[in-house]
Amino acid sequence: MEARTLISQLAARARIASRTLSVATTQERRSALLAIADAIELRSNEIVAANEVDMKRGRESGLNSQLLDRLLLTPERIVGIANGARQVSQLEDPLGKTLRQSTLPNGLALKQITVPFGVIGMVYEARPNVTVDAAVILLMSGNAALLRGSSSAASSNAILVDVMRQALSNSSISIDAIQLVPSEDRETVKALLNARGEVDLVIPRGSAALIRMVVDESSVPTIETGAGVCHVYVDEFADLSKALPILINSKTHRPSVCNAAETLLVHKAVAEEFLPIALKALSDAGVVLHGDLASQKVAQSLGIECALATDENWCTEYGVLEMNVGVVDSLDSASEHIAKYGTQHTEAIVSESDASVQRFIALSDCAAVMINTSTRFTDGEQMGFGAEIGISNQKLHARGPMGLEAMTTTTWIVSGNGQIRS
Amino acid sequence: MEARTLISQLAARARIASRTLSVATTQERRSALLAIADAIELRSNEIVAANEVDMKRGRESGLNSQLLDRLLLTPERIVGIANGARQVSQLEDPLGKTLRQSTLPNGLALKQITVPFGVIGMVYEARPNVTVDAAVILLMSGNAALLRGSSSAASSNAILVDVMRQALSNSSISIDAIQLVPSEDRETVKALLNARGEVDLVIPRGSAALIRMVVDESSVPTIETGAGVCHVYVDEFADLSKALPILINSKTHRPSVCNAAETLLVHKAVAEEFLPIALKALSDAGVVLHGDLASQKVAQSLGIECALATDENWCTEYGVLEMNVGVVDSLDSASEHIAKYGTQHTEAIVSESDASVQRFIALSDCAAVMINTSTRFTDGEQMGFGAEIGISNQKLHARGPMGLEAMTTTTWIVSGNGQIRS
Repeated sequence: MEARTLISQLAARARIASRTLSVATTQERRSALLAIADAIELRSNEIVAANEVDMKRGRESGLNSQLLDRLLLTPERIVGIANGARQVSQLEDPLGKTLRQSTLPNGLALKQITVPFGVIGMVYEARPNVTVDAAVILLMSGNAALLRGSSSAASSNAILVDVMRQALSNSSISIDAIQLVPSEDRETVKALLNARGEVDLVIPRGSAALIRMVVDESSVPTIETGAGVCHVYVDEFADLSKALPILINSKTHRPSVCNAAETLLVHKAVAEEFLPIALKALSDAGVVLHGDLASQKVAQSLGIECALATDENWCTEYGVLEMNVGVVDSLDSASEHIAKYGTQHTEAIVSESDASVQRFIALSDCAAVMINTSTRFTDGEQMGFGAEIGISNQKLHARGPMGLEAMTTTTWIVSGNGQIRS
Repeated sequence: MEARTLISQLAARARIASRTLSVATTQERRSALLAIADAIELRSNEIVAANEVDMKRGRESGLNSQLLDRLLLTPERIVGIANGARQVSQLEDPLGKTLRQSTLPNGLALKQITVPFGVIGMVYEARPNVTVDAAVILLMSGNAALLRGSSSAASSNAILVDVMRQALSNSSISIDAIQLVPSEDRETVKALLNARGEVDLVIPRGSAALIRMVVDESSVPTIETGAGVCHVYVDEFADLSKALPILINSKTHRPSVCNAAETLLVHKAVAEEFLPIALKALSDAGVVLHGDLASQKVAQSLGIECALATDENWCTEYGVLEMNVGVVDSLDSASEHIAKYGTQHTEAIVSESDASVQRFIALSDCAAVMINTSTRFTDGEQMGFGAEIGISNQKLHARGPMGLEAMTTTTWIVSGNGQIRS
């Protein structure tokens, strides 16, 4: 079947299923998630066996160890996935919340409430846990899910979706609320991205290349997730004893993720005191350095290698133990540097001055501003959302970590007793 | 200059200007709007003269009377535009509002606040009032505006933007917060729509064709505004004495706008009683009818003309005194009809049954549900927003009438005293 036709059929079924979700109660959605969790644990052996097929193919096709590790499902990991679903089932229901209400002079009662999007497509890579994580978040927020994972996880995804659909078969929710989009070729992704009007939203989750592709090719509305060139700015009024652990944590705690810091900017008033201890600590932690002239000079005096940072360096999301260091004349200069090279993800300021903090906030155009704390806290779990479907790197609709609420839209309910417009 | 380069330059200036808006106080933004209002009134003669150039060209090129009326600026209309700006200046500041806050177990204080988008492009047609209306809403919400109007209003737009920029020149806000995008050719629109990363959001306002073009061609995030195939559903539990005025008001009060109704659906249980009075009243009001077989039969018995409604009729936004009429077996059938043919704008139910109303709400996938009231109330002014930049017809970010708040995004402020992630 042609990919376009296939996606239209899946989306049409998902749309009908989404209507069963719209009328399902909170308790019915919670129960569905619990049934999914139980079914996943119960059929753990089958899931492991299906995953072994993917792992074998992965090893044969030469996937590197990091990718193989992401692909792997063990009995322990399966329990973790099931518990994740149970956790989501206990979160506050994001649907039917009243966001605003008022009574108009003509007596009309106005209320804005949260409702599901309807049909949401997920496009992701070879992490079979995302298949369940995403499905349960979408289900709990009342949305039907079209899941397009990677062909290298095809066997794992097929069994997981089968298990979840079967768990739904005893509920009021249609099994078509969870559907797997075939992953043999790229045509199904293209068709999904262009099913405008049939699919309400597509969310990419994975590498920068995947996200870019989705954003560029999609006519369906998307939420861009991803890239983070995050900065730590040490202000002239910084408590340097806080600045050092914040810097080291931001850079080295988990350098591969998007909320890790890539650049340190130090106000010139504290550079002489802070740079030597900062560069020494970074170097001791194995961080490769790129600096402006002032930082290079300090590094040289300590016998630490530090290449001259290029424009390309300042823009780079290293993802490894590598960092840029610069000295700035003022908070405004730091902020201009960030505006020029940042990706509007997370920016941290270390300062004891409220005036500095407020100005940094006003001048920062990003998803999260960290004040005297590590950039690593831009994270749904850490922020107490209980579940995260991704971190939005755009300004429309959702910004920063997205939990259940970000998967809802709104509708206005206007109640009257016969009012007409004059 | 090449359009792409030109737009990049305008956007870069707008970005710098947006930083002056980010740090401007509420009072500074309010004062800027009042200064704009005063300047517009003060230079009314100049504006009228510039408008006469557009009007003359419009008449010569054969614009129809409706388009010429939209283009026309009279001294009275200019006062109206200035008063509109004054009104927006008095609205509640949409910036810096705390949407959510909490304290995490590790002591971090979490706060989600509203902030401006940054740079917003408006693409619209030959209505010079939009030039000021949009600019003041964007300014009040802290955004720099790139205004791309129609070439047929070029002279009017040029003077209005000049007046507004001059009014800003005595404020802390950069004059580049308001810029006119040249309208000689379509290349500037294309360039604006593809300035991803330079422009944060593009909003189209105008005809369905304009909106479609923007949505299709834009790689910058957009908010789709527009089309409305709205329904009035008369339930089996309707108070028919309310149903009739609601129907007539929804269809005939102002048929050219998007919140006018196009289709009447009547539950079979009340069809026999309601259809004759409804069809008679519609016909008396000059409404041309298209009906299903049941409705046709009733119309014929009354000697009223009623063509058989085709699939195309059910999908059509007439914009004139023309309406489809159908009889449905149940509320669910009505809702399925609406799901199939509607545009997710506004759907009305007339019913005294709370169960019917709640089910209709749950099954309606639209921006606004009207309960026992006219579809015409989906409107920013009517809903008490004080100003409206358009009606969003999409689910992402904003749905329904958009006021100042819809022109903001959010940022997370995370305050600590040295916390790091372990």
